[in-house]
Amino acid sequence: MINYSKCHSVLITGAGRGLGLQMVKQLAAAPERPKNIIATARNPDDAVELQKLAKSHQRIHVISLDITSDTSVDAAAQTVEFIVGADGLNCLINNAAVNISSDLNTVTRDVMMKTFESNTVAPLFVTKAFLPLLRGAAAQGSGMGIHRSAVINVSSVLGSVQLNWGEGASFKSYAYRASKCALNMVTRCLATDLEEEGILCVALHPGWVRTDMGGPMAPLSPEESISSLLNVISGLTKKDHGGYVDYTGSNLLW
Amino acid sequence: MINYSKCHSVLITGAGRGLGLQMVKQLAAAPERPKNIIATARNPDDAVELQKLAKSHQRIHVISLDITSDTSVDAAAQTVEFIVGADGLNCLINNAAVNISSDLNTVTRDVMMKTFESNTVAPLFVTKAFLPLLRGAAAQGSGMGIHRSAVINVSSVLGSVQLNWGEGASFKSYAYRASKCALNMVTRCLATDLEEEGILCVALHPGWVRTDMGGPMAPLSPEESISSLLNVISGLTKKDHGGYVDYTGSNLLW
Repeated sequence: MINYSKCHSVLITGAGRGLGLQMVKQLAAAPERPKNIIATARNPDDAVELQKLAKSHQRIHVISLDITSDTSVDAAAQTVEFIVGADGLNCLINNAAVNISSDLNTVTRDVMMKTFESNTVAPLFVTKAFLPLLRGAAAQGSGMGIHRSAVINVSSVLGSVQLNWGEGASFKSYAYRASKCALNMVTRCLATDLEEEGILCVALHPGWVRTDMGGPMAPLSPEESISSLLNVISGLTKKDHGGYVDYTGSNLLW
Repeated sequence: MINYSKCHSVLITGAGRGLGLQMVKQLAAAPERPKNIIATARNPDDAVELQKLAKSHQRIHVISLDITSDTSVDAAAQTVEFIVGADGLNCLINNAAVNISSDLNTVTRDVMMKTFESNTVAPLFVTKAFLPLLRGAAAQGSGMGIHRSAVINVSSVLGSVQLNWGEGASFKSYAYRASKCALNMVTRCLATDLEEEGILCVALHPGWVRTDMGGPMAPLSPEESISSLLNVISGLTKKDHGGYVDYTGSNLLW
């Protein structure tokens, strides 16, 4: 069951399509939904389905956010401050990411750098920009979880170095794998730095999903992945802090 | 004992100072030394100690290499091809790296990107450029190790996500940790891609060493770290392929 009744506000990056859009859909449809669902997209005007959804749900706020631009991130943080007010922000979901094909032969320096920029560096700087709002929420609660303050980084099992071996190594992507692996490290660094303030930090693997990114061969539908993932997120506690958890709630090896 | 008698050629990046310079010194001084020790530095003219060393050891070849530039990397590969000839290159040690201080407050996007560029992306593209020479050497041998063909990526225990917790998290550096973690992933990707060709790929942790990078508080001298590390490198076999090994030969958790 998706129970976000104690979570006043959720912000999801990359909500224009794919898993981010599915999160917004399911959160808005849940009986126990958050008061504010903040959906960001680089080009909100192009996110037709998200815009339509927002028109029928007052709780959804669509805002423009280019996660690779400090100017855009700072502007978005200011807008979100108006929306959430003194409650602060309870749950930041860093979901926006790119996946550019890059095996040993096709990988370029540029693809590596662009992928790090979007998938690793941007989530860190989005988190830094929203820290005052996350801290504001953390100051009002106790324990750890999305009822208080949480940073959820959408990673991937492809970021596991340990599991990139044998059959687990069949998906070849230097850029995507390295960026998600580095995102796991950033998540762990954030977890050690923000623990004292009561801000939960977790890296999540949503499963292999039939989206534009996952392709048509993936075993999970976006509906299945996200209903499971939102359930896992709502149940996160101190024991998950600094962890690497998949959509079924199981821990993954780094 | 440092025994490189069956390793015709070693190339070390970042050999102008620190651990790279120490590797060159000890390899050149070893009774069982490689035929060719290729020491690269971004600005060889500034590497006074290396130049002096090269003058008294015919086996040391100093060449200019900016690991972040394809033009420079390609030119270096061409020069190395002349040096090693039909033997190919037995051992590539990707040692050059940067460490720019970056805790939660001081980290910038630019520091993250520059660190990924040097510490993660560059070793991949240096390896790609030298692959024809590594393959040339691999084609002439059997088994796995530096007697045949090996890519040694100098990583760090700071790249371990698992160990970045509790006391292990006391050294704060988003950029350095994320870059070395991502280098571990790149190493693992290379290991799965190059296994069939007999090219050994390993990530190594040299210990915490009193260099410009490690600072004066580090427990190991460059001499201690490198004599141990060169010994570990000379003993690497198939069982180490795709692994993460420290200067004592112990495996680290990713």
